[in-house]
Amino acid sequence: MAVSLEIISTMEKTRKILRKSQEFHFQNGKSISQFELAYDTYGKLNKAMSNCILVCHAFSGSHHAAGKFDNDEKNGWWDEFIGDGKTIDTNKYFVVSVNNFGSCFGSSGPKSICPETKKPYGIDFPDVTVLDWVKSQKILMEELKIPHWEMVAGGSLGGMQALQWAISYPDIVKKACVIAATAQSSPQNIALNEVAREMIKKDENFHDGNYFEKNAIPKVGLMTARMLGHITYLSENNMQKRFGRKKQNPESKVETDVIYEIENYLRYKGDKFSEIFDANTYILMTKAMDEFNICGDNENDFQLILKKIKAKLLIISFESDWLFPSWHSKFIQKNAMKVGISSSYIELEGSYGHDSFLFASDEYCNIVENFLNFNDG
Amino acid sequence: MAVSLEIISTMEKTRKILRKSQEFHFQNGKSISQFELAYDTYGKLNKAMSNCILVCHAFSGSHHAAGKFDNDEKNGWWDEFIGDGKTIDTNKYFVVSVNNFGSCFGSSGPKSICPETKKPYGIDFPDVTVLDWVKSQKILMEELKIPHWEMVAGGSLGGMQALQWAISYPDIVKKACVIAATAQSSPQNIALNEVAREMIKKDENFHDGNYFEKNAIPKVGLMTARMLGHITYLSENNMQKRFGRKKQNPESKVETDVIYEIENYLRYKGDKFSEIFDANTYILMTKAMDEFNICGDNENDFQLILKKIKAKLLIISFESDWLFPSWHSKFIQKNAMKVGISSSYIELEGSYGHDSFLFASDEYCNIVENFLNFNDG
Repeated sequence: MAVSLEIISTMEKTRKILRKSQEFHFQNGKSISQFELAYDTYGKLNKAMSNCILVCHAFSGSHHAAGKFDNDEKNGWWDEFIGDGKTIDTNKYFVVSVNNFGSCFGSSGPKSICPETKKPYGIDFPDVTVLDWVKSQKILMEELKIPHWEMVAGGSLGGMQALQWAISYPDIVKKACVIAATAQSSPQNIALNEVAREMIKKDENFHDGNYFEKNAIPKVGLMTARMLGHITYLSENNMQKRFGRKKQNPESKVETDVIYEIENYLRYKGDKFSEIFDANTYILMTKAMDEFNICGDNENDFQLILKKIKAKLLIISFESDWLFPSWHSKFIQKNAMKVGISSSYIELEGSYGHDSFLFASDEYCNIVENFLNFNDG
Repeated sequence: MAVSLEIISTMEKTRKILRKSQEFHFQNGKSISQFELAYDTYGKLNKAMSNCILVCHAFSGSHHAAGKFDNDEKNGWWDEFIGDGKTIDTNKYFVVSVNNFGSCFGSSGPKSICPETKKPYGIDFPDVTVLDWVKSQKILMEELKIPHWEMVAGGSLGGMQALQWAISYPDIVKKACVIAATAQSSPQNIALNEVAREMIKKDENFHDGNYFEKNAIPKVGLMTARMLGHITYLSENNMQKRFGRKKQNPESKVETDVIYEIENYLRYKGDKFSEIFDANTYILMTKAMDEFNICGDNENDFQLILKKIKAKLLIISFESDWLFPSWHSKFIQKNAMKVGISSSYIELEGSYGHDSFLFASDEYCNIVENFLNFNDG
């Protein structure tokens, strides 16, 4: 009898595309006449349909949140949390993970063919917002006949979606787990995104966003943008421990002018990213982040917005995160407490800077697991 | 009798160039056959020649540290500190400020004409180090017949020079004021510099550094590099206060795709910088910063190096500085105390992030002034 690799994990998983020949109206007033949403599911829907969790991906992520499918080289981005016996136990929960509009990994975005022009949308794909993503995830939810989410969870831009869900659909979100996120992108977030966008837009191969028509790719812009991104996802301390001032082994230099390991690492990562990511997607996703602001004009406005929430909130930040430092999370928690909604907040140490949201630790997993299972009888 | 503008300030100042037809040997083994050092002086040398202060500029600075000369639009970079009756009182002290080798503001650098080829050095100008700068400043010091420095002071890359002076020439430096600096560039410093260099090098107009020959300027690379630099010189908090999420007035947008004030500010600053700065200089200066490391391989090595110092040290860091966070300064202070040299350290609040070293505040000025005048009878 052949031993199957399936023995390693019994987690049920599916990868599908929802195709809808109906208009989707974006927040900015534009629309597309039909759309696709790529999504994965992990675990099994129970009969009462009461075990559903939505996980939302960050900037460059995708619906691939756990396990490996046929063509996957790596496990999904939250594989350390989602699976049989893990924090989000797929023996118990049915997890849905959707690729966001504007992305380049399967859902409608700049690389998709526009049915009217028969060409890729490119730069003409509508600007997307966190609210647009939440609305699209709601469509999928209805399609799957899921009545409510036991939890919506995500880190970074995914955390913003979790928060937006709790605000936009208070009656169908029981819990929202908002990790390494903010209620409002800061000018520093905008500034860093703007530098990255400028690198891409000013790349000679960008052609005002119409690079496909010119058979070109703004690879240099994408590469340097990602190099910068990587710095913001790590922490000074993490880099110090991991790279220090170690020099790169001459035999494994990506280019001859590299001296330090950290330089080699960034160029290698930037180069790989530029092979798989789309430049217009980069611009759309960072713009969505810039525009995220559920605070209104002042704290009173923000409190009125938070008051709508019926879900229990869990807010987590990481001490070493300088992209969304803890004060962003504390600001949500303070105002949630002021209006008396159910919210708990914890700052965890996290050794990986902003990227800490991706990596399991005992205390991190324990806290999310207890939050998720709190109501269970 | 005509009222002269001179009444406003009686500070004597001179702007000169030292031209030497002798070789300068750089730390990396290369040399140039003759060289120029552009320098300013402020105040008046006393008869005993015992009132001299050297101030050292940071990455994109120049010898123009105080006041205005004929063609200057703005005051020098440390004008808030240097002048009649100011912290470094030019009624009492004679201040020397030298443009560093590799710069593009007057001293020998990539834009200078190589006497052998009769063309600009460009990419062939030797790599420079902090030690090279200190050695060149020592040549100027001898030329001016200055026997010792009452103080060597500088912020950022200028602070590294002050520290290097105290180590390299212990007998002629009485005091060293090391501000917003480090004993060793961190991998995060290197990473940020590397991204900036990549933006410049991968600009289509860089031509492997030979852009002058091609009549080109890698303007886009310089612009985006400076935009990134600017983010690192400010602090999240400072940006929050100064820009917040304010939108740019449509009438004063530098480009139509700008939305927020912070975006407009960065593009404006980046664009202006790209008009005056030299791309090869950017690479040389950041490389000098990367290579700065007086720590040796371990703390014992570092302590042996610090033991050479006879100068009194004043080390200042700023709470909001994330380019050279306070732990860098504390690390110097801890080791200075361990080997028993005279050193005091203070972390100041500073509202401007790394750039705080440039801006006077009562406590900052008071601390530097007391340090400078401590020995006076």
